[in-house]
Amino acid sequence: MYPKSFASDNHAGVHPTVLEAMTAANHGDAPAYGDDTWTAAFEDKAKETFGATAHAFPVLNGAGANMVGLALMLGRYDAVICADSAHIATHEAGASERLLGVKLMTVPTEDGKLRPSDITSRLGGIGNPHEPQPTVVSVSQVTELGTSYTPEELAALAATAHEHGLRLHLDGARLANAAAFLGCDLKAVTTDAGVDVFSFGGTKNGALAAEAVVVLDGTLAHAVPFLRRQSLQLASKMRFISAQLTALLTDDLWRENAGHANDMAKRLADGLADIPDVSLAYPIESNAVFATLPHSASEKLLQRYLFHYWDEPAGTVRWMTAFDTTPDQVDDFLTDLRKATA
Amino acid sequence: MYPKSFASDNHAGVHPTVLEAMTAANHGDAPAYGDDTWTAAFEDKAKETFGATAHAFPVLNGAGANMVGLALMLGRYDAVICADSAHIATHEAGASERLLGVKLMTVPTEDGKLRPSDITSRLGGIGNPHEPQPTVVSVSQVTELGTSYTPEELAALAATAHEHGLRLHLDGARLANAAAFLGCDLKAVTTDAGVDVFSFGGTKNGALAAEAVVVLDGTLAHAVPFLRRQSLQLASKMRFISAQLTALLTDDLWRENAGHANDMAKRLADGLADIPDVSLAYPIESNAVFATLPHSASEKLLQRYLFHYWDEPAGTVRWMTAFDTTPDQVDDFLTDLRKATA
Amino acid sequence: MYPKSFASDNHAGVHPTVLEAMTAANHGDAPAYGDDTWTAAFEDKAKETFGATAHAFPVLNGAGANMVGLALMLGRYDAVICADSAHIATHEAGASERLLGVKLMTVPTEDGKLRPSDITSRLGGIGNPHEPQPTVVSVSQVTELGTSYTPEELAALAATAHEHGLRLHLDGARLANAAAFLGCDLKAVTTDAGVDVFSFGGTKNGALAAEAVVVLDGTLAHAVPFLRRQSLQLASKMRFISAQLTALLTDDLWRENAGHANDMAKRLADGLADIPDVSLAYPIESNAVFATLPHSASEKLLQRYLFHYWDEPAGTVRWMTAFDTTPDQVDDFLTDLRKATA
Amino acid sequence: MYPKSFASDNHAGVHPTVLEAMTAANHGDAPAYGDDTWTAAFEDKAKETFGATAHAFPVLNGAGANMVGLALMLGRYDAVICADSAHIATHEAGASERLLGVKLMTVPTEDGKLRPSDITSRLGGIGNPHEPQPTVVSVSQVTELGTSYTPEELAALAATAHEHGLRLHLDGARLANAAAFLGCDLKAVTTDAGVDVFSFGGTKNGALAAEAVVVLDGTLAHAVPFLRRQSLQLASKMRFISAQLTALLTDDLWRENAGHANDMAKRLADGLADIPDVSLAYPIESNAVFATLPHSASEKLLQRYLFHYWDEPAGTVRWMTAFDTTPDQVDDFLTDLRKATA
Repeated sequence: MYPKSFASDNHAGVHPTVLEAMTAANHGDAPAYGDDTWTAAFEDKAKETFGATAHAFPVLNGAGANMVGLALMLGRYDAVICADSAHIATHEAGASERLLGVKLMTVPTEDGKLRPSDITSRLGGIGNPHEPQPTVVSVSQVTELGTSYTPEELAALAATAHEHGLRLHLDGARLANAAAFLGCDLKAVTTDAGVDVFSFGGTKNGALAAEAVVVLDGTLAHAVPFLRRQSLQLASKMRFISAQLTALLTDDLWRENAGHANDMAKRLADGLADIPDVSLAYPIESNAVFATLPHSASEKLLQRYLFHYWDEPAGTVRWMTAFDTTPDQVDDFLTDLRKATA
Repeated sequence: MYPKSFASDNHAGVHPTVLEAMTAANHGDAPAYGDDTWTAAFEDKAKETFGATAHAFPVLNGAGANMVGLALMLGRYDAVICADSAHIATHEAGASERLLGVKLMTVPTEDGKLRPSDITSRLGGIGNPHEPQPTVVSVSQVTELGTSYTPEELAALAATAHEHGLRLHLDGARLANAAAFLGCDLKAVTTDAGVDVFSFGGTKNGALAAEAVVVLDGTLAHAVPFLRRQSLQLASKMRFISAQLTALLTDDLWRENAGHANDMAKRLADGLADIPDVSLAYPIESNAVFATLPHSASEKLLQRYLFHYWDEPAGTVRWMTAFDTTPDQVDDFLTDLRKATA
Repeated sequence: MYPKSFASDNHAGVHPTVLEAMTAANHGDAPAYGDDTWTAAFEDKAKETFGATAHAFPVLNGAGANMVGLALMLGRYDAVICADSAHIATHEAGASERLLGVKLMTVPTEDGKLRPSDITSRLGGIGNPHEPQPTVVSVSQVTELGTSYTPEELAALAATAHEHGLRLHLDGARLANAAAFLGCDLKAVTTDAGVDVFSFGGTKNGALAAEAVVVLDGTLAHAVPFLRRQSLQLASKMRFISAQLTALLTDDLWRENAGHANDMAKRLADGLADIPDVSLAYPIESNAVFATLPHSASEKLLQRYLFHYWDEPAGTVRWMTAFDTTPDQVDDFLTDLRKATA
Repeated sequence: MYPKSFASDNHAGVHPTVLEAMTAANHGDAPAYGDDTWTAAFEDKAKETFGATAHAFPVLNGAGANMVGLALMLGRYDAVICADSAHIATHEAGASERLLGVKLMTVPTEDGKLRPSDITSRLGGIGNPHEPQPTVVSVSQVTELGTSYTPEELAALAATAHEHGLRLHLDGARLANAAAFLGCDLKAVTTDAGVDVFSFGGTKNGALAAEAVVVLDGTLAHAVPFLRRQSLQLASKMRFISAQLTALLTDDLWRENAGHANDMAKRLADGLADIPDVSLAYPIESNAVFATLPHSASEKLLQRYLFHYWDEPAGTVRWMTAFDTTPDQVDDFLTDLRKATA
């Protein structure tokens, strides 16, 4: 048994409903690689969720979803504009460069979010054969700093991208948390906002291992099966991946899980307010709390909890909550934090 | 509900013991990406199974295991000698070429198996900068034609490869079936035979989605975590992958599952013996039966069962059995086959 | 000073007219990377030679021309159908796999030439996400065995390729030799035959180092500058590359050079006719003579001449002639050959 | 005829001595691909110039030299630390990402030069499988901003890199200009400073098209022929490339050419001193002058001269001189500049 973890929402296990759906799928033979009824059911559920133009494809993990999604839109000399904190730029082991061969044009940001001017200011090399050609803008929703784009902010980015002939990709590893925070449905921050290709993250939302690549530009969808296979993201016993995703999209389980995690982050952040020497680094717009506190306090807490430094020299840590974090766990953590900073 | 499938062992579901192990792992928080006790337990179990020099790393699927394993041993201008029927050459969507950038020097074979002379006859370009340099030999155990290498055959290939400075890779998507057929343990056809890097396939052996890359050359092992991450083969909630593999390696469940599947293939092949117009294309050395029969008979059977043509013009089909294929299902199939060919 | 070489047409130096053109270009400043009048002149000359639809781009070498030309037509999961003797498959150090990430579907041939049925018989995997998707057919004109496709043969290949949605690429490292042998102009075996993208080889035709990628499908041409730069095939002082190509295309210097080389090969082959123990391996359709003779004779000749074995165990050697090979050199060689085989 | 160009040193033609050397090499047959006496002579000359441990390999252009040199030192998940102004990061069309698959960890700099702390501050991700692993530091000598590293500065970078297990690569497209500016020999800023692999640029120093990859770490040298071939950087008629490089390294022609170009840049910069509204953006340490002036003045000058904006919004332009720039051309330019700013 491990101590309570605030290190990541992927330290949590699987939501019981998801596991039940997987167990229920374990019945007799079924065609492999997605030619099965569970996958067909997920495809229907995805259209219901994201709109009739959505083509959804289950994959195995978040980096895989990003690589397949981006590969769809990138030629041999193309570049991607993204925040310098983007997961594809920082924590996917150089997969963008190695597997896609793409240049990431990274943009410094205050809060992890791109603005339209971050796009337009990086188009100067278009047409110059000595420079990679930006053709895709990639954003993360939730961002790596825990912030969420509003539907309007995304729509403005999509409009700017499209106006200049670029497409908009969205890394939705925590898409559910953003929609729960914003109080909108999943379609409002994807299809309706003009996103072209995005990933929908199941794993951090309570699945065992399940993400989806969702393609809204119909001219791109035919390539997904080939790229997914080649990118090592095709499960043979696909029914068990699809069943997880369907479970999350059924009866708004995604919102229940994400909303609860967000509430726990809010509870944690609210509890910090009256603790001296602890300050928030970014606004709380999802299930992430970035806080700056004395190293001595962090070290004491790390003896009883799991979490990571985000910026160790600055004393900033990241605390994540999950679908199964309890109010008591948050309150205990706050109590221990008060002691540690006393 | 689908009809009984003889199309592939990945049309089967998950063995109950494996699913129980996954369910049991769903308990509290755990560190992600393999820093957990379930993964440590699998690493121990792998050393118990494959020897103390074995470094084992869970991954998500068979093509992923092959790509990570091969990447370990390949530089920028290297080539791999393999059978022209090898899975890496035929059914991984060009991942070898795209993700590894490697030239596959494919060798025609009678039975899917390489011989030492297939290696030595392809070394003529060594030292010539105009030609890719062969540095790895890759074999499949079981082969794509259902045949199995004996430990002696593998040892001879390893010796030849090593003598010329090449390493031996083994695609063990159905390694359990080979060992069960040969009546040996898993170590006999890997570590003891001189293999350098291999994959151990769990999915076709009763897992949901779990394979392992096993590295016997200690100088290579340090690179696996990086390559696995970059190759999109790292699960965040790794405990659920490791738990599957441990379950298969515990109490010889792997042998029970593979042995049963092999027995069912034998039962099927034996039953063909007295059916006119049906002949075996390859010897039965695993859970695969390749048979040649009139197209009219195949078409009738395809109305009641799932399976695929292997060589449609020749009338050759592939029938696979799995851990959960029952004697009755085989017998019913034989009855229907007799009617179809009557 | 080296002995006379029959090893390759790239053992020859530079044709005086070409060197004069380079020297004449060395005059004052000029924009780099092709924005110069010499390159514009070459573009015009290429349209004159290959037709108004031809977009021609100077590059640095033959492998570079092939890689840029193929890259234009290949997506991430595509495959190329080509002869197993194709230069891209055998002597470009795995650049196709490494730089393009492409699977080469190699076809055994009698004479280095593909037939339409070699295309149609390899389309079975189209639509199957487990297999690379053939989208390009690549032929060599002259082939690596010295044979030449007739315009009709090329047109049949183009028609078959196009009928199935594939494009036709032609590696024209010795395009001039083919046209000289066939007695046609360069357009007849490229544009008029339905080729989509090809290379025109200058180096083996008397240039110092100059090839061109020629694109007949206008929708592809815009990508060449980017791919050429990225593929390391863009010369900064481009005027000196362009001047070489223009010299070859002016006053049919290409035909004079190639025709002379072909004549010398013919003279050599004719001279073999009455030499016992020496036989031709392939018909003489360019400047290459493949002959089979006793190893002892080859070894004696190798003391006085440069050439290579093509198939050493079989005793087959390749003798190439060039624009500057003289009748006396051929006759001397024949005399020495007669002595060596006596 | 073009107007006088201050746009780039690659707008110049070929130095007469270099062209004579090429012409002299055009004599009879010679083995291809570098097995010739001209290339052997260059290899000797390179050892004479860079020390007995130097293995030198001619290639075709600067980006090619960088890609071959870096490929030698980079595995599949490695990263390169370099200035954000580095040529490999900005003007090679994404070749680093596409051909090498490498992540460039770019560092903002004041003057184009890295400091040891730029290395040490970017090693935090070493050992973390989610992050690319920095294994090479790459510097440009001369930098893209015209500045030169002193031998001591390079030695400090090499020491820091080596201390942490990284290698030092140097892009020497204008290495001659740096050595001429510093008044040292070429060895002082490469071999003696602890550089592991570097390129020596001939083209900007008066060659037609010739660069060299020089390897000082003997364990790496064997791979160059394979990587050079695969990277499309191998000339078949190599003697003509080698002859250029030998000419530059003979009788210090490289220093004469680079020193003259540097002198002309100095003359130009000195002449600016008393022109109002024109200021230098960087110190003059090579043949590059970066100046900031009113747009109206630049536009007037662009009617009579070729040059480029470096930072158009800021009004900064780059003026380059070459081996053949004359004092009169500089003086005329200054006169016109004075008029333009008046």
